[in-house]
Amino acid sequence: MTRLLLNADMGESFGPWKMGLDHEVMPVVDLANVACGFHASDPDTMRATVRLAAQHDVTVGAHPAYPDLVGFGRRSIACSSEEIENLVLYQIGALAAMCRAEGARLGYVKPHGALYNDMMRDPAKLAAVMRALKAFDADLPLMVMATRDPSSARSLAAEHGLTLWLEAFADRAYDAEGRLVSRREPGAVHHDAEVIVDQAKRIATGAPLTASDGSELVLEADTLCVHGDNPESVAAVKAIRQALMDIEAAS
Amino acid sequence: MTRLLLNADMGESFGPWKMGLDHEVMPVVDLANVACGFHASDPDTMRATVRLAAQHDVTVGAHPAYPDLVGFGRRSIACSSEEIENLVLYQIGALAAMCRAEGARLGYVKPHGALYNDMMRDPAKLAAVMRALKAFDADLPLMVMATRDPSSARSLAAEHGLTLWLEAFADRAYDAEGRLVSRREPGAVHHDAEVIVDQAKRIATGAPLTASDGSELVLEADTLCVHGDNPESVAAVKAIRQALMDIEAAS
Amino acid sequence: MTRLLLNADMGESFGPWKMGLDHEVMPVVDLANVACGFHASDPDTMRATVRLAAQHDVTVGAHPAYPDLVGFGRRSIACSSEEIENLVLYQIGALAAMCRAEGARLGYVKPHGALYNDMMRDPAKLAAVMRALKAFDADLPLMVMATRDPSSARSLAAEHGLTLWLEAFADRAYDAEGRLVSRREPGAVHHDAEVIVDQAKRIATGAPLTASDGSELVLEADTLCVHGDNPESVAAVKAIRQALMDIEAAS
Amino acid sequence: MTRLLLNADMGESFGPWKMGLDHEVMPVVDLANVACGFHASDPDTMRATVRLAAQHDVTVGAHPAYPDLVGFGRRSIACSSEEIENLVLYQIGALAAMCRAEGARLGYVKPHGALYNDMMRDPAKLAAVMRALKAFDADLPLMVMATRDPSSARSLAAEHGLTLWLEAFADRAYDAEGRLVSRREPGAVHHDAEVIVDQAKRIATGAPLTASDGSELVLEADTLCVHGDNPESVAAVKAIRQALMDIEAAS
Repeated sequence: MTRLLLNADMGESFGPWKMGLDHEVMPVVDLANVACGFHASDPDTMRATVRLAAQHDVTVGAHPAYPDLVGFGRRSIACSSEEIENLVLYQIGALAAMCRAEGARLGYVKPHGALYNDMMRDPAKLAAVMRALKAFDADLPLMVMATRDPSSARSLAAEHGLTLWLEAFADRAYDAEGRLVSRREPGAVHHDAEVIVDQAKRIATGAPLTASDGSELVLEADTLCVHGDNPESVAAVKAIRQALMDIEAAS
Repeated sequence: MTRLLLNADMGESFGPWKMGLDHEVMPVVDLANVACGFHASDPDTMRATVRLAAQHDVTVGAHPAYPDLVGFGRRSIACSSEEIENLVLYQIGALAAMCRAEGARLGYVKPHGALYNDMMRDPAKLAAVMRALKAFDADLPLMVMATRDPSSARSLAAEHGLTLWLEAFADRAYDAEGRLVSRREPGAVHHDAEVIVDQAKRIATGAPLTASDGSELVLEADTLCVHGDNPESVAAVKAIRQALMDIEAAS
Repeated sequence: MTRLLLNADMGESFGPWKMGLDHEVMPVVDLANVACGFHASDPDTMRATVRLAAQHDVTVGAHPAYPDLVGFGRRSIACSSEEIENLVLYQIGALAAMCRAEGARLGYVKPHGALYNDMMRDPAKLAAVMRALKAFDADLPLMVMATRDPSSARSLAAEHGLTLWLEAFADRAYDAEGRLVSRREPGAVHHDAEVIVDQAKRIATGAPLTASDGSELVLEADTLCVHGDNPESVAAVKAIRQALMDIEAAS
Repeated sequence: MTRLLLNADMGESFGPWKMGLDHEVMPVVDLANVACGFHASDPDTMRATVRLAAQHDVTVGAHPAYPDLVGFGRRSIACSSEEIENLVLYQIGALAAMCRAEGARLGYVKPHGALYNDMMRDPAKLAAVMRALKAFDADLPLMVMATRDPSSARSLAAEHGLTLWLEAFADRAYDAEGRLVSRREPGAVHHDAEVIVDQAKRIATGAPLTASDGSELVLEADTLCVHGDNPESVAAVKAIRQALMDIEAAS
């Protein structure tokens, strides 16, 4: 990938409960992280979401999570590595079936919530996720968080024969190591649309961000995580997309 | 298929709870109906069961069910046709991933419990199951119950471009239409090993059974359902298998 | 009860998913049917809902359902009578604990969705629900649907030593037997606010409704079911409440 | 309590899956820790278990857990304090309803598995559990692990107006602080019946145990945790019970 792709969480409704403005976001992103029934979604929602993605030529990614609907996959569960490997494999397979039914192709995997955070902190859990991808299809890229130095994740991916896609955030502050500043800290989340678009442009062009300690931070990234929770975030996605298209047109 | 294949439900443990003598039954059957997490099983159990099947060259079948762990998929749930189609598709996909990880091939689909009974009674539900198979892989045979006249199921399968595998029972009494006598009736279940083996041989050779009204019943069948719940049923499976091998050797 | 009380389903959020305008509806109803975690709600939502009810002096009712979050308790599940008795008992107890923690009193029980419909159709299921109430607290009234002739439900309640609360609907058409016209029929649901308020007033004063076959239908009712799903339905609740207060003031 | 009471986990079956020899253990223990549906059990199992306890004059305790059937409540889930308070409250209420239906009294609360371990390590989680008990019924004792110095747990209990019951183990080695030696260490679990009975007698009489570092450890305990998983553990329970009765008879 050379262009910075936009990815968004999709298919997060569950049974009668609706979440996310999928119909508005799908036309303006490249990658749809589709929930697989463990933290959100259900077979009907998954299928409809994959269909929507296919209609907009959006690549479908599996968005597997810990089994925790009530906690939306945001609470870490002390699973063993084997449990993680198998629950990721299960969820990938379930979503792959939806893709096959809709003539779409499963394009990548991005773990969700606490599972994502845990794999970024614990190499044993990252390796467990990688084993699941390798067992299913080693050509599936794994989306992980872009940091200042992604070399250890890259090494582990290479051992498993996998490709990594590095993901950055336009609306979050970073520390000097390229980790997200905790939401509990002031200034952790950008709310100003101009600031967000500026950060997206810097990431897209390889220009440095200013880390929370004032140092310069260059993040190598393949994709940018955007959100379709509400009209404001959808507007931000559109502004980011326009900015990226302007960059592309100018190059 | 020309030989009558033996199929058994497998992988019916769940988390810490064990069910079924899978290690004893797997070596003596041809087809393993593997639970997919909706009425029994979990990702770890599914993977271990598929691995065990692969070790014994047993063909893995998906055994999808209504979402009802506490009721073991035995309680009918008033799902719509679309819900049935998608929950079957989801479960097939999840199990297919386990097969891929273990180098096994998913060979067929047999719905479980109340879903099986409902699809045999309601053509709309049978069609929903068939749409799921067709969407995933039209080469996957669907296992349904053998009856005196399977022509309507065959027509529906032909419309969907699917193959049917007809399943008979050696330990159950049949009525004149080739339906199982209800368990509430006396004589519905055979307990005598000789009776069971005799019925298996009749089904394998196309010889008529005696239906509950005394009439002759010829059942066309591709496979025989056997059980590995307890040592007695495992012994019955072994006796049936020996009888079928004797028939084969004699022919 | 002499005044017609307004009841509404409440606490139907689940984990991260929100449903219903509870904060707007609670101030204008008398009875809150609180979901108990089987078709909707979770321990946090239940507690918050009970707290809100207590703040508005609204009586809390248990709203037990079949175990089916994804189907929102709207799909009948073929549970045995014993299973129904115990799952109702379980849910009543869970909600009663929330009431105790918030200094509220559990005031009644109204089964939800498919369980409600099933108990109205099948006396064995109605009896199972009644056994649960009797086992927990025979002073808890059971809310059931008002029909032209509620005598059989009344007899069954008397056998169990229970009180019934009869519930009517202002926004639904009735057939001559006092059953709701199926939503599939034209005219089954009233959308005109004037029609709804007029029907509420007729029910409150014992005036006859016009059944779907043109006959007169008098419904004896203790309570009226209202909805807080969206701003329109909340407006309807307020209009009904005002109409009922006007009747009370005039009497 | 002056006599050392025996407590055992009960009602750990789930739907079709059976676990534990409840019918054999119930007659020889004093306290039954009954699973409440979050890590094991279901409404039917809970009711049957409470009925069995009532028949044997065994006191019923609530055994609440994290919501994790597949993991049997043994995996820590990063729940907030409020979530813990409310899920404990929910489970206590559900079991209390079963007790009321069977004319039994809920006598205490013992958190299960990872929730038990987490509350022993984290005072915020212990306080959350205590708030649940206080909200439901401050007369319910909370069972916690006996350690060399239980003063901090006692202080927290006093703040909440609660009674603690201290629980010791006859089949586990202790370190000098009175914590259980990890199962990963050699000698962590006693398998010799004589060693187990001797440790039970020492705990019952206040005689010192030998901790893993060779030091003497006196554990103040109200109750001893025993197991009914298999015939061997049931035999151990009976031997312990006889030893305790001999001590009582001799005193």
